[in-house]
Amino acid sequence: MKKIKQIDLNTSLHADTVIKARFGEVDSMRVVWHGNYAKYFEDGREAFGKKYGLSYMEVYEQGYMIPLVKLEIDYKNSLAYDQEAILTTIFKDNDAAKIEFFYVLKRKSDGLLIAQGHSIQVFLDANSKLQLLNPDFFIKWKKRHLPL
Amino acid sequence: MKKIKQIDLNTSLHADTVIKARFGEVDSMRVVWHGNYAKYFEDGREAFGKKYGLSYMEVYEQGYMIPLVKLEIDYKNSLAYDQEAILTTIFKDNDAAKIEFFYVLKRKSDGLLIAQGHSIQVFLDANSKLQLLNPDFFIKWKKRHLPL
Amino acid sequence: MKKIKQIDLNTSLHADTVIKARFGEVDSMRVVWHGNYAKYFEDGREAFGKKYGLSYMEVYEQGYMIPLVKLEIDYKNSLAYDQEAILTTIFKDNDAAKIEFFYVLKRKSDGLLIAQGHSIQVFLDANSKLQLLNPDFFIKWKKRHLPL
Amino acid sequence: MKKIKQIDLNTSLHADTVIKARFGEVDSMRVVWHGNYAKYFEDGREAFGKKYGLSYMEVYEQGYMIPLVKLEIDYKNSLAYDQEAILTTIFKDNDAAKIEFFYVLKRKSDGLLIAQGHSIQVFLDANSKLQLLNPDFFIKWKKRHLPL
Repeated sequence: MKKIKQIDLNTSLHADTVIKARFGEVDSMRVVWHGNYAKYFEDGREAFGKKYGLSYMEVYEQGYMIPLVKLEIDYKNSLAYDQEAILTTIFKDNDAAKIEFFYVLKRKSDGLLIAQGHSIQVFLDANSKLQLLNPDFFIKWKKRHLPL
Repeated sequence: MKKIKQIDLNTSLHADTVIKARFGEVDSMRVVWHGNYAKYFEDGREAFGKKYGLSYMEVYEQGYMIPLVKLEIDYKNSLAYDQEAILTTIFKDNDAAKIEFFYVLKRKSDGLLIAQGHSIQVFLDANSKLQLLNPDFFIKWKKRHLPL
Repeated sequence: MKKIKQIDLNTSLHADTVIKARFGEVDSMRVVWHGNYAKYFEDGREAFGKKYGLSYMEVYEQGYMIPLVKLEIDYKNSLAYDQEAILTTIFKDNDAAKIEFFYVLKRKSDGLLIAQGHSIQVFLDANSKLQLLNPDFFIKWKKRHLPL
Repeated sequence: MKKIKQIDLNTSLHADTVIKARFGEVDSMRVVWHGNYAKYFEDGREAFGKKYGLSYMEVYEQGYMIPLVKLEIDYKNSLAYDQEAILTTIFKDNDAAKIEFFYVLKRKSDGLLIAQGHSIQVFLDANSKLQLLNPDFFIKWKKRHLPL
């Protein structure tokens, strides 16, 4: 996940989400079970989508589904029950017909880095056919939101 | 859950499923998190459905969905990580247009009672309309499987 | 769950929580999978605990664990992806050494009743021994919070 | 995940696990929700651990915890409800004090590649201190199981 270091939050589209470690998300080591980070990142994508008009619902209404084709998580420190964290979900422009995000999860109290993540999604049409070119609505979305 | 005591397994349709407590299902008390029993019971219903021809898929192909309207769980003892249990899923005939099950979950090693459960499902048609009468396929299913 | 009708929110300790149906919580019928309500209710108990000083952490620091021994859920209507609901978690005083809650989950937009629930928890000490009498801290808690 | 292509199953320690897509694991696109693969891979590691004497329990009894520090998943095709898949969990020897696995998930009926994965775990002692050298028990384990 080297590319994450090159990201400048000042010029990147991003959204922050507050994550709180639930009792049912904690494992027998009393920290958030690693599999739950996939859910946190999904919450992050949704927060991003709500902020910038790219939520699952909005994409779905355009006739597309956007399943993940790649998910990477680097676990740096653990998050204990009831601790809060800030998840920053960062849009990474990708020339291909893909939606790419980076994720930075930091403990709220002191900024300790908990995890970093990376995901890539593709576009499927209503017949589950993979789109090799960006759908029109996404091209327009990029024009509206991305700097030239 | 008093009615469960009146059930005679010799005359009741039932299916057994082996449950194994996964690491990710265990909470910080090192026992299976209580919410996971809903999943175990769903596994039990599927095992029953496979055995007797009443799986979600078979019901769905008949044009119906069968969501739960009631779920009850009595937790008697806990199940630790990696322990195995036997879930017995028992069909309870119900005069109304409902599918009713009881559940008995016992530790495999010594038969210790871990939990008991009860669920009721209803029939929705493809338009999500509640069915007040049993669908034909279910009437036939009952005739095939239940003693007169 | 008849007793829930007798509850008067004006005289009962209760806490409200906003629930939002996540994508990963929705099943193939495009509504929240029934098993996720156990998690919602746990969120409700925690919100109640935070409001009134009876969170898992506070109880744990007093030397006790409070596992569920009973959970009941009546599903009345479904909650679709991205819909919000208000969960009201209501404390029900119980003479025995138990913590009892009722739950009312309503869709936020129109107040439609989605589900009702009921749970009972018991006290285990650090050796996992069931407490037949209320722990001191809980007796004091009741004195502080419950009307005579 | 290029390194996965270089793996020769004939000379690698590996274990196979049968995965079955549960109803509660399927999302509104009617395929297994991507976050559930973390759970499948955990099942795979446990199957491997049981086969070769490296289960969580056995490691824990040696005084160590083995949390994940990296998880990567490439989603190639989706798995529908009730479909079965074979998960092959492959041990990759790593000179550092790490446990590394690759994962290959194929649909059972026709061998279609569903997903590939990769994980790295580290050793923490009972005080949650990161181990920079392999624990003795793991050195011995390697001697027993790995070809010279």
